[in-house]
Amino acid sequence: MGTNGKTSGSAGGGSLPQAGSGKESGGAHFPRSRKVLVDGPRGVRVPMREIALSGGEPPLRVYDTSGPQGHDIRKGLPPLRGEWIRARGEYDELEPSYKPVPGHSDPDIEMPPPRKVLRGRGNVTQMHYARKGEITPEMEFVAIRENLEAEFVRSEVARGRTIIPANINHPESEPMTIGRNFLVKINANIGNSAVSSTIEEEVEKMTWAAQWGADTVMDLSTGMNIHETREWIIRNSSVPIGTVPIYQALEKVDGVAEDLTWEVYRDTLIEQAEQGVDYFTVHAGVLLRYVPMTAKRMTGIVSRGGSIMAKWCLAHHTESFLYTRFDEICEILKAYDVAFSLGDGLRPGALADANDEAQFAELETLGDLTTRAWEHDVQVMIEGPGHVPMHKIKENMDKQLEICHEAPFYTLGPLTTDIAPGYDHITSGIGAAMIGWYGTAMLCYVTPKEHLGLPDKDDVKEGVITYKIAAHAADLAKGHPGARDRDDALSKARFEFRWEDQFNLSLDPSTAVGYHDETMPAEGAKVAHFCSMCGPKFCAMKITQDVRDYAAKLKMADDAGLQAGLQEKAKEFKKGGSEIYVKDEA
Amino acid sequence: MGTNGKTSGSAGGGSLPQAGSGKESGGAHFPRSRKVLVDGPRGVRVPMREIALSGGEPPLRVYDTSGPQGHDIRKGLPPLRGEWIRARGEYDELEPSYKPVPGHSDPDIEMPPPRKVLRGRGNVTQMHYARKGEITPEMEFVAIRENLEAEFVRSEVARGRTIIPANINHPESEPMTIGRNFLVKINANIGNSAVSSTIEEEVEKMTWAAQWGADTVMDLSTGMNIHETREWIIRNSSVPIGTVPIYQALEKVDGVAEDLTWEVYRDTLIEQAEQGVDYFTVHAGVLLRYVPMTAKRMTGIVSRGGSIMAKWCLAHHTESFLYTRFDEICEILKAYDVAFSLGDGLRPGALADANDEAQFAELETLGDLTTRAWEHDVQVMIEGPGHVPMHKIKENMDKQLEICHEAPFYTLGPLTTDIAPGYDHITSGIGAAMIGWYGTAMLCYVTPKEHLGLPDKDDVKEGVITYKIAAHAADLAKGHPGARDRDDALSKARFEFRWEDQFNLSLDPSTAVGYHDETMPAEGAKVAHFCSMCGPKFCAMKITQDVRDYAAKLKMADDAGLQAGLQEKAKEFKKGGSEIYVKDEA
Repeated sequence: MGTNGKTSGSAGGGSLPQAGSGKESGGAHFPRSRKVLVDGPRGVRVPMREIALSGGEPPLRVYDTSGPQGHDIRKGLPPLRGEWIRARGEYDELEPSYKPVPGHSDPDIEMPPPRKVLRGRGNVTQMHYARKGEITPEMEFVAIRENLEAEFVRSEVARGRTIIPANINHPESEPMTIGRNFLVKINANIGNSAVSSTIEEEVEKMTWAAQWGADTVMDLSTGMNIHETREWIIRNSSVPIGTVPIYQALEKVDGVAEDLTWEVYRDTLIEQAEQGVDYFTVHAGVLLRYVPMTAKRMTGIVSRGGSIMAKWCLAHHTESFLYTRFDEICEILKAYDVAFSLGDGLRPGALADANDEAQFAELETLGDLTTRAWEHDVQVMIEGPGHVPMHKIKENMDKQLEICHEAPFYTLGPLTTDIAPGYDHITSGIGAAMIGWYGTAMLCYVTPKEHLGLPDKDDVKEGVITYKIAAHAADLAKGHPGARDRDDALSKARFEFRWEDQFNLSLDPSTAVGYHDETMPAEGAKVAHFCSMCGPKFCAMKITQDVRDYAAKLKMADDAGLQAGLQEKAKEFKKGGSEIYVKDEA
Repeated sequence: MGTNGKTSGSAGGGSLPQAGSGKESGGAHFPRSRKVLVDGPRGVRVPMREIALSGGEPPLRVYDTSGPQGHDIRKGLPPLRGEWIRARGEYDELEPSYKPVPGHSDPDIEMPPPRKVLRGRGNVTQMHYARKGEITPEMEFVAIRENLEAEFVRSEVARGRTIIPANINHPESEPMTIGRNFLVKINANIGNSAVSSTIEEEVEKMTWAAQWGADTVMDLSTGMNIHETREWIIRNSSVPIGTVPIYQALEKVDGVAEDLTWEVYRDTLIEQAEQGVDYFTVHAGVLLRYVPMTAKRMTGIVSRGGSIMAKWCLAHHTESFLYTRFDEICEILKAYDVAFSLGDGLRPGALADANDEAQFAELETLGDLTTRAWEHDVQVMIEGPGHVPMHKIKENMDKQLEICHEAPFYTLGPLTTDIAPGYDHITSGIGAAMIGWYGTAMLCYVTPKEHLGLPDKDDVKEGVITYKIAAHAADLAKGHPGARDRDDALSKARFEFRWEDQFNLSLDPSTAVGYHDETMPAEGAKVAHFCSMCGPKFCAMKITQDVRDYAAKLKMADDAGLQAGLQEKAKEFKKGGSEIYVKDEA
């Protein structure tokens, strides 16, 4: 199908990329959708998904995260940003510094084709260019995607109010932005653990997540072959990839937290930056003096990274190297343009612990670190909770905005109750929608398996769709321009009984069709002027259409006229009996 | 198993009642739960579900809607309230006025055992007794259930701020209340249509919904055998049953809205009141002058009852009999204690129509009708939307409180976006949680099939669980006393790796267990001190426990002491190496 940036419109934009196993290839998840490329002023071409409609309605274009379709995952995606990056110059081209480590990597594992890595000689961050007044192609791409001015994107990046995670070693990525004056984004977590999963499964989960609308993907792998899994994922990802480097660093010291060193961590950062990771979660706000604040908590420290660093701090009785070496970390990140996702290592793991002393103490430190990162022109977002009852959600947002100088907030849910394991995509979808409305820029999804197990593909999809709903509900509540277009198009289709349009405009057409067909499987039912909920006689929308048809016939513009007309209509209506009502039943 | 109100504690309180088909009988949905009966001061015994816990934790009691277990649906439930009702006297005992109508009822259909019906000689409403200063057994039952004073319940009923839907012909019901100073309740809709479903399926759906936590059930049947279906449902329902009588009235005039008459409607009200329906949705606020306000809407009138009445008003060019005969309706309702659910016939069916002129005009009329119903001591709640973006939800609640004099609000969702058919339990669960927090007393569930088809049992369960989450999240945000007990118990179980307790405390233990076992099926994994998300080495909670164990050992109460101790610990920790860390892997 080959949409490598040269085609202006190709059918099948909604089909699945050819994943490793091949078993899902070619399935059309978005019927009557096609990928179109929108041309920007300087040669930037931005993919959108265009949904064709019936009934004389114009097609609707929607934001599209699915990436190039139909490629061979063994070759990886085309380097969309390659030329842009090279055109900015001042890079060293090097051999990757990583060498496979026996016991951590399977020597027989297949790897993507070898490649050189780039390292900026100076600062190569989008923030750096933005502050110099330069509009990069990445900013332009984002502007077209979000239907905003490129200069506005530049100014928001410069101000630190939005980030464009775009490692120069991940040229395959389609630029996107995370900031509260843009569409609310969602992240999907994937990753194997010591207990389960294979590389192919993880690559497929990443592709699958992006297919359904994930804006970024975090690879949280902790088992064997972490490096190799990540390489496969990045080479095939059109969305930015985030990681928590301390997980891999801990693997390198055989899981003994107190054996972690700055050198091991630093080398891990470089290894991952060379691979093309776009943002790093760094739990640099877990200070020694905050750790005792968690002792009386219901669930202590629930962030893996946070607990690792807490353990290290206690063992060494000193501040962690993430904090003491923060400027050195900034030096590394700015040579590749890796963004910080400053981790909330002390986030609450239960409603009982929400908004407590430990949580907000760490937030103060994250605010200080934001300023320090910005001094290096390194992009920053701030991670947030977690488990928070509804009435305590807004305080999180308000404090974050104030303490962290409006750096983008990136929250995990929050879950609004603890009593529904198995449904935590829902308990957290509620909190996510609300905090998105209040100003959170990216929502980290939670799947139905949260607290219980690792998500499979079905869980990933359920999590992504739930969070697309939350993010979109937030865009609507924020009054984001054009956010309601899709709702209006779908509602109009619903009212006009254009069933296929209603399905095709939905976040998940196949599920909608499947549910419809369970009750009314006949093809004819998809053009029926009623549905299974009410049957042919009782359909409210049908009756309303009758009412409206009369109003239209009478062509009355004002209410006074309409009142007069209603008398006329009442007479007609009674005379005509139930004629109109019955005709559609025939 | 026979818990007919005489047993003080019987095992298996969580198993399914023996439903018609028998196929689901005996499944234990709530392991380690038992039904206990809490004794009130005047002989009232209130069922609660008690969840046994391990690890020395006391059992947790939760509100229980499941009703008596193990009964024969052909005999119906025992009449819990029978004696209370008779003790209040002043009833006529009559033969039911309903006779089967050929063409509307299958003559061969099996019916429950015949029974006499009660009709109060005077006013028999809970509001009437409350205003006389009388605490009924129903109020006492509610008080125990909600852990509040009976006098408070009485005063809220008298004030109209809460209702106890309790038709004297539905003695099988366990009293509950709907008001914003009580736990937020949820309603589940069931009902067949011309297109699908059987009686047995509907009875089973009702029982199933109550099993998972529905506080009331609305029977929205519109097809054949409406009367017979309802009789089976009511005789087997321990939760109040609501209906929309206009649906059946319309069936009686063969679906021709303009042929509806007051007499047909009145007889339908009496028929249903005699059967024991506890609340009626009455769309009496759809006034002729409001109908033109809907002409410019995106989706016009989406309420079935509202559109039927709009059509009638237009055809006759007069106000509907629901409005003009409102006092006569009150006279009927007060003779059986049927509560009003004043229907929002002009609720928005799309975000585009939210909070518009038509919607709020109707609300004004519902406010006037509330006052008129209260003059008859008839209980009232007010139905609300619908489809509303998050930022417009609070206005709905604020206006309803003011215009309807604090009568309880009962909303459908609201859905916060229109783009996710197939997931409208989630789009609406977000809005439901929020409006519940703002003060809505009962949330009408939405299932994944909304807009697409009729819900099956899986959909009913998904809808109920989603709405239990929303209602509970609202209770937490409102700071309802004791609301967090279950969250805290579950979080503590999670932190202490008491997996079975975590499952058993959840809203849906079998789903939680199932998800857990997908990744770690071994029985041993349920006592493991780690889980599949992180594996044995990286578990944050495990690390935190280590940290806390140290703090406990050092027995330091204050931070200064803790700081000193931390230095001590740091030395120990380094000396001991990774011993503690490793021991659980053995």
